[in-house]
Amino acid sequence: MKILEPIRIGTRTAPNRVAVPAMVTRLSGEDGYVNQGIIDRYVRYAEGHVGLIVVEAMAIHGSKSGPLLRISDASFVPGHAELVKQVHDAGPSKIVPQIIHFMKLARSGWRQTIDQLSTADIDLIIEQFGAAAGRAREAGYDGVELHSAHAYTLSSFLSRHNKRRDEYDGRTLEGRLRMFGKVMTRVRQVVGKDFPVGTRFLAEEAIKDGYALPDSQRIALRLAQMGVDYISLSVGGKFEDAVLRPGQPLYPYTGYSGDRCMPGDSYPPLPHVHLAAGIKEYINGKGFTVPVISVGKISDPADAERLLSEGKADMIGMARQLLSDPDWVKKVEERRPDAIVRCIYCNVCKQLDENFKLVTCFLWPKGATQAPRDDKSADRPRWPAEGLVLSAAVKDGTVQLTWKRAEGSEIVGYDVFRAEDGGAAGIVEAVKAPKFSDRLVLGGLSYTYHVMAFDKLGRHSPPSNSIRLDLPIPDFSQPSAPREPSHA
Amino acid sequence: MKILEPIRIGTRTAPNRVAVPAMVTRLSGEDGYVNQGIIDRYVRYAEGHVGLIVVEAMAIHGSKSGPLLRISDASFVPGHAELVKQVHDAGPSKIVPQIIHFMKLARSGWRQTIDQLSTADIDLIIEQFGAAAGRAREAGYDGVELHSAHAYTLSSFLSRHNKRRDEYDGRTLEGRLRMFGKVMTRVRQVVGKDFPVGTRFLAEEAIKDGYALPDSQRIALRLAQMGVDYISLSVGGKFEDAVLRPGQPLYPYTGYSGDRCMPGDSYPPLPHVHLAAGIKEYINGKGFTVPVISVGKISDPADAERLLSEGKADMIGMARQLLSDPDWVKKVEERRPDAIVRCIYCNVCKQLDENFKLVTCFLWPKGATQAPRDDKSADRPRWPAEGLVLSAAVKDGTVQLTWKRAEGSEIVGYDVFRAEDGGAAGIVEAVKAPKFSDRLVLGGLSYTYHVMAFDKLGRHSPPSNSIRLDLPIPDFSQPSAPREPSHA
Repeated sequence: MKILEPIRIGTRTAPNRVAVPAMVTRLSGEDGYVNQGIIDRYVRYAEGHVGLIVVEAMAIHGSKSGPLLRISDASFVPGHAELVKQVHDAGPSKIVPQIIHFMKLARSGWRQTIDQLSTADIDLIIEQFGAAAGRAREAGYDGVELHSAHAYTLSSFLSRHNKRRDEYDGRTLEGRLRMFGKVMTRVRQVVGKDFPVGTRFLAEEAIKDGYALPDSQRIALRLAQMGVDYISLSVGGKFEDAVLRPGQPLYPYTGYSGDRCMPGDSYPPLPHVHLAAGIKEYINGKGFTVPVISVGKISDPADAERLLSEGKADMIGMARQLLSDPDWVKKVEERRPDAIVRCIYCNVCKQLDENFKLVTCFLWPKGATQAPRDDKSADRPRWPAEGLVLSAAVKDGTVQLTWKRAEGSEIVGYDVFRAEDGGAAGIVEAVKAPKFSDRLVLGGLSYTYHVMAFDKLGRHSPPSNSIRLDLPIPDFSQPSAPREPSHA
Repeated sequence: MKILEPIRIGTRTAPNRVAVPAMVTRLSGEDGYVNQGIIDRYVRYAEGHVGLIVVEAMAIHGSKSGPLLRISDASFVPGHAELVKQVHDAGPSKIVPQIIHFMKLARSGWRQTIDQLSTADIDLIIEQFGAAAGRAREAGYDGVELHSAHAYTLSSFLSRHNKRRDEYDGRTLEGRLRMFGKVMTRVRQVVGKDFPVGTRFLAEEAIKDGYALPDSQRIALRLAQMGVDYISLSVGGKFEDAVLRPGQPLYPYTGYSGDRCMPGDSYPPLPHVHLAAGIKEYINGKGFTVPVISVGKISDPADAERLLSEGKADMIGMARQLLSDPDWVKKVEERRPDAIVRCIYCNVCKQLDENFKLVTCFLWPKGATQAPRDDKSADRPRWPAEGLVLSAAVKDGTVQLTWKRAEGSEIVGYDVFRAEDGGAAGIVEAVKAPKFSDRLVLGGLSYTYHVMAFDKLGRHSPPSNSIRLDLPIPDFSQPSAPREPSHA
């Protein structure tokens, strides 16, 4: 499979085409030092054979913030060195840190914008990026990722909302690209040509008057011209449409652009792959082959493989899916795709981050701070011997399912599978209690349901009995509407 | 060409696959009666051989609003009958009215929402849709279109923002579909089976917590189950993210969802065709062949033809493009695609509508209230005989173009063509004065420009001389950033 083939990232080689993009874990303290919880989280990805591990955003400057990793002075290097050592000891995964600069935020809702920066401020930020990249290299990382996405400083220069009117003029593409150009130039001066430097930026801002594909194709081309070693894409996540919650600093994933950044269960699979495909086609057409990482609700190995074989992406980025199951790659290698704990895009992880709580997965065992291990030896959960497990009723346009509790050690939840009109069965929900109401069913179609229990180790029971329901199309003719045609 | 093939719409046959979706013209008065300006606007589309003409939204109720057509009582029928007669006299185009119900709005920003409607209110709306559809049939229209898109009443029932908790429960798909079901049932009771009934609805709400493709596929399926004769799609245009302007009633195209509804020049061509394709694939898979109309920055005949031949759409909807050139179909029939006045998506038409001004096209002659005629006989604009017409300079990341004024009768503007890196030349802007600054150029690429003048009849001059510029990649290494690597 192409997904399992190695890929060159500058002077390094990732063992496969799967990347875990930077995800805040809230495992770090206010001090910003690497701790054991952080190390465990990233070692887990290495044990799952993730090709490229991007460590959550870490500050290049001393600016105040909530719990956040830092790489803003030499004192942080030993912690990162230990993280890198333990990840490398765990397998061939490559690991890079995402380094970030962000502007000041006040709980009042006030936020500093880039047009308030003096030339000296900007030159300092450029220096800070260079110095942080140097520390990443000192710590033994396999490269460094410049965070140019979402609501943060580098992204704000690239944005069509950039209000500067000097050499960084937001009215011209070159003005918007100038800050990235200077940062990249400085970073190369510090780390040299042989150290991989990747970038993450937005394929679409997804805000009013924001930029879309025509700009992002050209931004990507500039990244390629500047010798970036990989291009990782995202969408949205901006301050411009963020929802202010009284007393809380503005969180850039609360508006529509936040929905697009982490598309939930109301979105179809692969909602953004056309953006990565459009960008890759454009830069490839100009002779640049720098790897492009596609993201956004990709969780099915078959989808991932198709994107690569159709040339719509060079690597597949999965954040929420690898959080729910860090063994995704391993299970694909072992030809056990059905053993993958599939993300249901419930975005509980997003809500935890939003509330500055430890980021875990809803599908993990209750109280777990890390993903459960894949343990094939032990007993799987099972269903009670007598009688039907699953039963269903239809009421008020919803299918109401109830089922018997599964038996086994530490059952933590149930996956509800639905097949519409004889199509393929997919997970519609994962629940902790043995009941579920499906509110998105349509009269005139048939639905077939089954459930599977899973325990804290992610081991699944056999499928329950399945139930098929043929839903009638409702009768919409009401007494209140006269039966006789009236041309009144 | 498939685009020129007839297509069945219920009991009628449109002469080709091109539709002009409903566009507010602001030609009507507060009284809501059809006037000569309205008739001229729609006859113009018929003269241009547009297959399906959808007349701008007209109110089914008496509720106060700005200038807006009405079909809310029998007194409006004669005006519509005259409009239909003159359109039919002009050619084989089919013409249908878009009928709309909208909720109350106050200049304070307050707006009525559907959860405030009593059952009696709802039953009245259902009756009003039925009665208005009956009047459309009386007036001789070829069918009727139920407006279930954007920020209006039927769309609000379909929305994930529907706050009702009764039989129209916004928490269930069936609850959200119930209002449409009742309206469609009532409309059929009134107009019968043989009168085409189409619907326009949103393929994506493009607002926070709004619906996306999974819901719109199933909504489309219900429309098909209910016997809708065509499905016309749109995106966004909601109140939820509209920007309130003090003293103005809320306008649902002022937020990001408004950007998506009428994507401007920052969007690539065809940004929404994947939504129509996904909906068509889904309902075709269920055995329904009701025509699906794809929209969104489609203006190139080759793109339109490809969408139809690849089965991604059954018809092509073009609003802004047909406003700029109602003769699009005729010019395709005559194999003169280059004679089409191509929409540049400047959205001046949108701004005019937003400000309740007469909706015209920026590319029309100054002061014209209708599109100029295609006059092949008369002299085309020409360039001065001596010397180069076009000259260019590069400054601060922009290409600054200036050119000599063209000669001829009533020159109204100039189209600026740009080819990037030897690619195909396309219009980047149309301007009235002989100068243009291109701010979206990227260093490292070559750009070739030429201009063409056009007069009030839409006749174009020959291309000017073309100029090629090879833009250097800027030097980003600044004195402020020390040359020596420092691992500080």
